[in-house]
Amino acid sequence: MEKPLQLGLAGLGTVGTGVYETISRNHAILEARAQIPFAIRKVAVRDLSRPRDVELPPGLLTDNWRDLVDDPEIDIIIELIGGTTEAYRLVKAALQARKPVVTGNKALLAEYGSELFQLSATMGVPLYFEASAGGGIPIIQSMQNSLICNHIKSIIGIINGTSNYILSSMELEGVSFETALARAQQLGFAEADPTFDINGWDAAHKALILTMLAYGTPLTSDKIYVSGIQGVQQVDFEFARKLGYNIKLLVVIRHHDDTDALELRVQPSFIPNDHILASVDGVFNAIAVDGDIVGETLFYGRGAGKNPTASAVIADVITAMRESLHPEHHTGFHPYDKERRVLNINETVTPCYVRFRVADRPGTIAEIASSLAWHKIGISATSSTKGAPDEHGTMWNDLVFILHSCPWGQLQAALAEIAQFADIDPSPAVFRIEKLGTSST
Amino acid sequence: MEKPLQLGLAGLGTVGTGVYETISRNHAILEARAQIPFAIRKVAVRDLSRPRDVELPPGLLTDNWRDLVDDPEIDIIIELIGGTTEAYRLVKAALQARKPVVTGNKALLAEYGSELFQLSATMGVPLYFEASAGGGIPIIQSMQNSLICNHIKSIIGIINGTSNYILSSMELEGVSFETALARAQQLGFAEADPTFDINGWDAAHKALILTMLAYGTPLTSDKIYVSGIQGVQQVDFEFARKLGYNIKLLVVIRHHDDTDALELRVQPSFIPNDHILASVDGVFNAIAVDGDIVGETLFYGRGAGKNPTASAVIADVITAMRESLHPEHHTGFHPYDKERRVLNINETVTPCYVRFRVADRPGTIAEIASSLAWHKIGISATSSTKGAPDEHGTMWNDLVFILHSCPWGQLQAALAEIAQFADIDPSPAVFRIEKLGTSST
Ligand SMILES: NC(=O)c1ccc[n+]([C@@H]2O[C@H](COP(=O)([O-])OP(=O)(O)OC[C@H]3O[C@@H](n4cnc5c(N)ncnc54)[C@H](OP(=O)(O)O)[C@@H]3O)[C@@H](O)[C@H]2O)c1
Ligand SMILES: NC(=O)c1ccc[n+]([C@@H]2O[C@H](COP(=O)([O-])OP(=O)(O)OC[C@H]3O[C@@H](n4cnc5c(N)ncnc54)[C@H](OP(=O)(O)O)[C@@H]3O)[C@@H](O)[C@H]2O)c1
Repeated sequence: MEKPLQLGLAGLGTVGTGVYETISRNHAILEARAQIPFAIRKVAVRDLSRPRDVELPPGLLTDNWRDLVDDPEIDIIIELIGGTTEAYRLVKAALQARKPVVTGNKALLAEYGSELFQLSATMGVPLYFEASAGGGIPIIQSMQNSLICNHIKSIIGIINGTSNYILSSMELEGVSFETALARAQQLGFAEADPTFDINGWDAAHKALILTMLAYGTPLTSDKIYVSGIQGVQQVDFEFARKLGYNIKLLVVIRHHDDTDALELRVQPSFIPNDHILASVDGVFNAIAVDGDIVGETLFYGRGAGKNPTASAVIADVITAMRESLHPEHHTGFHPYDKERRVLNINETVTPCYVRFRVADRPGTIAEIASSLAWHKIGISATSSTKGAPDEHGTMWNDLVFILHSCPWGQLQAALAEIAQFADIDPSPAVFRIEKLGTSST
Repeated sequence: MEKPLQLGLAGLGTVGTGVYETISRNHAILEARAQIPFAIRKVAVRDLSRPRDVELPPGLLTDNWRDLVDDPEIDIIIELIGGTTEAYRLVKAALQARKPVVTGNKALLAEYGSELFQLSATMGVPLYFEASAGGGIPIIQSMQNSLICNHIKSIIGIINGTSNYILSSMELEGVSFETALARAQQLGFAEADPTFDINGWDAAHKALILTMLAYGTPLTSDKIYVSGIQGVQQVDFEFARKLGYNIKLLVVIRHHDDTDALELRVQPSFIPNDHILASVDGVFNAIAVDGDIVGETLFYGRGAGKNPTASAVIADVITAMRESLHPEHHTGFHPYDKERRVLNINETVTPCYVRFRVADRPGTIAEIASSLAWHKIGISATSSTKGAPDEHGTMWNDLVFILHSCPWGQLQAALAEIAQFADIDPSPAVFRIEKLGTSST
């Protein structure tokens, strides 16, 4: 029998507890399948006096993560403390101490990925991060290994469960944004502070990780254009339904062959109802990857939560153990390509849906339409619904335009002009319309 | 620079050509990502004089696969010759010569899996088989690595592209079974002899491989109940649509916790339209895996074809190279659990759809209904459509019953009785109705 490998677990919050529990519960099947004996040797937390959901043998806990890094018996470090300050120090120290690291910290990788993967490459010590994007969905390992021979043409995904839960509730139950958010929080699907879920930044951090895997080098977060779901209203779902669309917070990563540039954005988007992504509801995530050899693939599952995330962390732990004795060909990431140009959002081209709130008086449609025409933006459909009077007795209606494909910048110029007009709310709701393939053959 | 690893490729047909072309075309990105130099050293075919779709350097081809196994310079063998006779000899000889093997041969694994994985375990030499199920979909690696900590509760999938193409065409375009099959052959989606696609056995071979991964040991093919799509007719789609269902050739693998027994079958099935599997159209495959920790996941992509299959083969080749120097913790399969009891098909329980062809005379509904009642099978709906007269002038109608959940054996007993009645076609069409979860939260 080999000597058991020793794990150091930093963090015993939501995910750390899931990891600890799952390793205890399914330990037999893990060792049988992986054929590697292992044990958790130390667990670091912030507050030793805090009650825990799991029973721990005495002496396992420490409130200093350095005890894990400094312990010569510990072979592998699992970072689940979150944040970017202490987590950064911990991961760096672990790699420097030649201990492979498993993390689920997308914020850390978005901020320090470049430096940490460089360090990993220099030291020859892998950093694994399956849990950092897509929760239980094995998207990282699939990108790293299974799709390794593919030039990635695009990655289109729904990768924030909270915002998808809110949008699904609005769509399927007709509730308002506020009601949907409150319920998500009640059910524990949204955190107390859901800012990064709603404003798109959680999805953006994950998108940066997927882009790095697909195109060979970490990118800083100023490279991605991000807008969230704050502006989505019931009336948008009504219009979407009529047009055969659903609304999703969509990550779009696309390689433009002609210019070798990347398109990289997170925006609320209309997607056709017959595309498989349109039926991804609730807290589920889905990621469609299009490769030049494999064609279109899609990965679907729970994008967050204690157990699904623990499943991903443990998969990495097993890989880390398998590769720990001979890390020279490890499956963690190492930068392998130069940075590509990322398109400015204004260069990106799609059809759009724009909803204006306008005062109920003759001429507003004509004014908006003329401005769009002057900016050479074609209109493929327009529709309006009666609104309600405001406190001054003015009626406000919703006026929707479906616009032909044009660069985002061109549309913004038109919208800036329209914002000057009287009786038109200067902040319209604007969603991309994504013409995703239906892949029927 | 390391010495390049040398590959021996056996077979240069559909998939072999895809592998050769892809390795040539995307060689740079493969080496950059994997950081392992490699080259194809020899290619074995049956007929040296046959014209090839790829340009080959002189001296690469041989018509004897033993040249690959015997070449001490060759590190890894890729088996893409198909069949179970020579392929069996080749894989066995390669493992005995301590050369890791990559194969896409599901028939081989269904027939000789038990012996070959035992040999692989004894020799400590891995056998990889990502391409044997799900084509480009990374289901094998995901089961082996990413979901490693999960007890698998069920695997439900559409894993034969040809039959799914036929069913989709029937559903979406209203064509007959025969027309759909002819077109699939014309477009190259069905082979000249599509017997195993239509009768369910191709799906069954893949199901046996997935069962082995999930439950730890190879099973022989007599353990799986298989029925194909031959009996599906347009009228079934009409009824399905009215009821909110679609018809798919479904693989069902399920662990019954109470008895520790496996349910294992391939049958044409009704699935609810709001389940994501119902929208898997054309030659696409999809596999839903439910794990106790990760929850529900789904993998979707092209299940066959030159390039998607090549993508899977090459992923295995890279893994084989990574692990070839230190195979003691390889990610190929080794048996790790005892064989479980598999339920007899008669023990399995679902609601069913049954369509009888009956002569147009009073009393047939009553006769069938009484027989079902006598066998204690509840009817939840019944419906009929007018048919056409046969050559004797007798009108034949389609009579459909939707039946409550009951064991398959109980239904078969009733059907055996009904088959004795006059004026009722003795071979009704019978489909399982699968109440798949909708997973909305
Ligand atoms: N939750 C999810 O669904 C999910 C999904 C994917 C990825 N992730 C990522 O996983 C990571 C952990 O998330 P979580 O939800 O488990 O967080 P959490 O519930 O807030 O838990 C954090 C844990 O880390 C400990 N900790 C914090 N600072 C520490 C320090 N300086 N030294 C030692 N221990 C420290 C805390 O100790 P105390 O218990 O003593 O406070 C706590 O146990 C984050 O990077 C997150 O982005 C989470
Ligand atoms: N096609 C798919 O979409 C697909 C998908 C998944 C898995 N697979 C599996 O992949 C394998 C190959 O399929 P395929 O479609 O590529 O088959 P194929 O087109 O029939 O090609 C078979 C190749 O093997 C060669 N060959 C046959 N017997 C040989 C022998 N005894 N010695 C040396 N070479 C021999 C043939 O040589 P010649 O060229 O000289 O005749 C031919 O090049 C099968 O196991 C199949 O089940 C196929």
